[in-house]
Amino acid sequence: MTKARIYLDWNATAPLRPEARAAMAAAWDQFGNPSSIHEEGRAARRLVEDARAAVAAIVGADPANVVFTSGGTEANALALSPWFGGLPAFTRLITSAIEHPSVLAGGRFAAEQVSRIAVNGAGTVDLDDLKRQLGDGPPALVSVMLANNETGALQPIPEVAALVHAAGSLLHVDAVQGLARRPFTINELNADLVTVSGTKIGGPKGVGALVAQRGATMPVALIRGGGQERGRRAGTENVPGIVGFGAAVAAAMATAAVEIPHMLRLRRLLEDGLKSGSDVVVFSDGTERLPNTTLFGLRGMRAETAVIGFDLAGVAVSSGAACSSGKVSASHVLAAMGVPGALAEGAIRLSLGPSTTESEIHGALEAWRKLSSVLGKAR
Amino acid sequence: MTKARIYLDWNATAPLRPEARAAMAAAWDQFGNPSSIHEEGRAARRLVEDARAAVAAIVGADPANVVFTSGGTEANALALSPWFGGLPAFTRLITSAIEHPSVLAGGRFAAEQVSRIAVNGAGTVDLDDLKRQLGDGPPALVSVMLANNETGALQPIPEVAALVHAAGSLLHVDAVQGLARRPFTINELNADLVTVSGTKIGGPKGVGALVAQRGATMPVALIRGGGQERGRRAGTENVPGIVGFGAAVAAAMATAAVEIPHMLRLRRLLEDGLKSGSDVVVFSDGTERLPNTTLFGLRGMRAETAVIGFDLAGVAVSSGAACSSGKVSASHVLAAMGVPGALAEGAIRLSLGPSTTESEIHGALEAWRKLSSVLGKAR
Repeated sequence: MTKARIYLDWNATAPLRPEARAAMAAAWDQFGNPSSIHEEGRAARRLVEDARAAVAAIVGADPANVVFTSGGTEANALALSPWFGGLPAFTRLITSAIEHPSVLAGGRFAAEQVSRIAVNGAGTVDLDDLKRQLGDGPPALVSVMLANNETGALQPIPEVAALVHAAGSLLHVDAVQGLARRPFTINELNADLVTVSGTKIGGPKGVGALVAQRGATMPVALIRGGGQERGRRAGTENVPGIVGFGAAVAAAMATAAVEIPHMLRLRRLLEDGLKSGSDVVVFSDGTERLPNTTLFGLRGMRAETAVIGFDLAGVAVSSGAACSSGKVSASHVLAAMGVPGALAEGAIRLSLGPSTTESEIHGALEAWRKLSSVLGKAR
Repeated sequence: MTKARIYLDWNATAPLRPEARAAMAAAWDQFGNPSSIHEEGRAARRLVEDARAAVAAIVGADPANVVFTSGGTEANALALSPWFGGLPAFTRLITSAIEHPSVLAGGRFAAEQVSRIAVNGAGTVDLDDLKRQLGDGPPALVSVMLANNETGALQPIPEVAALVHAAGSLLHVDAVQGLARRPFTINELNADLVTVSGTKIGGPKGVGALVAQRGATMPVALIRGGGQERGRRAGTENVPGIVGFGAAVAAAMATAAVEIPHMLRLRRLLEDGLKSGSDVVVFSDGTERLPNTTLFGLRGMRAETAVIGFDLAGVAVSSGAACSSGKVSASHVLAAMGVPGALAEGAIRLSLGPSTTESEIHGALEAWRKLSSVLGKAR
């Protein structure tokens, strides 16, 4: 008898929702190129525009301000542009020390044009440091995430936006981890640009979007060629992917009012269990976090060993961001928070999803109890 | 009773092959992030690497030299880079006047760094002009397509490669339209870089690849962030899309020996029929072309009217490239070939696929006979 796997790595990627599967399978038959003017092309175009309306609705934006991309990483790369139509070129990018690698890479800014806002020990951006940096030079493009992918810590975006706009600067928010977990509208965040994708909430891989609050605030295209996406992103549209994205966000939002408290309840159960037996530290504990994310450490534990131990016990967890090939290294997020290396090197992320069950949490805690006693001996 | 549609726009995009559907549906269950080190991640990684091997095999490349992208347009945008690891930066891009818009856009070169090779009346690049341009300055990146998407004309790539390499320059070939229609290996073409995608041969939209002949010859990443694709293209891999791409190219190549003569026979039947009744001009006639592509014109005809007329008659055709939103404008390809505007403005492209039938060709010709008599009156 094989024991069922327990998947607690939803911040890396999520199982596809049935709604997304059904919508994509149906879209396979509408194979036309959305740029073609014949019947097949128009049918594909309708699917793309329906999905665009769904994505726009989730973030409270005008569909005309939604640009589909190949994912969150490309949307971030597109957003981090010195060039916005009608604006003088930005000469600097201010981002935070805890962003996703696709933001830390700086997009189309040169490395020397990028500065990073410090974060406090709780894992949220230091607003005083941001204010100081904004005052230190010409208008900047600023990029701060909605929720950190490792700790789950929510960032004070409306406060960030107020400072950014007071300085005549522009704000981009990577909201990939927050979508449908910490519902928001682009107006409420007061962000000029928001990156979203559906891969963490049951949508397909390979699709995402950059959404603008105002149509005028759109970066110059990164991928140029045909006039798709109103000239903002060339390439034949990934029709089934876009359709699956739209279906997944619509499904996630429709059930968010049930799913969010469910995840939060299980996360609390998980954290109570983790803290009960050993000297576990939950990072950003006490800070407002995503309802599904727990990053914890145990002094002296090696994260790679723990991830493999969990895996052998049938539990999929992560040592932090899973965004580069099998690489396990100390978290830049914990380093920025001032967590000592000996603790940071053993950080394990457990991230839950709407279909996570209470018995899976108990299973994971059981695995952890066995594992921590072994890891304890190894110390 | 509804009459079945006749789809003759395979150069815009193709219906999904059953093999691609089956492979993608199976891949939906392997939802892990290929960068995760747990079982779910490793299963997804295996799917990606199997597909990489399939794509590499089709073009005779080493799998390590295949970089997956979100499609042909992104692969072209990546390829057209001044920066290649270990080489001095290129200061110029030489391309041809008949490239796809994603190449004409020039990638990361400034507009003033791009020059275009002239083409002759048959629609193939002028090798003397290329030679002259290569001799006129420092080493260049050169980009010439394998087969033109509008006329289907095959370009003399090995001859182009010889000139390019003699000048110490680098050759990129956009082979999107040629894949599995004009089988090739990267060594036989002697191209340094080749762009492929499966969307014209029954693979999914939203995925493509840039393939290098030698591992050393890879452009600096366009989309940066996580270390995916060995640092050459960041972003979580589109696992089902990549799997579908691999399955489609494998299926297309397995049946190419049957499909290519089939398409060629039908194309000849089509062209004989087109030429029999009216003053139709088939462009690049007499030139070696893709087995599936016919671009024709009738003096005084308006392409947009003809495309709509065909569509109403149940036949999906194109007025040339379908790469921008519903835009129908005179072809840059025909202009470069010196075709007079009055003829070029009426150019209609019929492109066939492996599942096109003889009765569909007769149906299209019947539609054309009715249409051309009406369009004839309108002149």
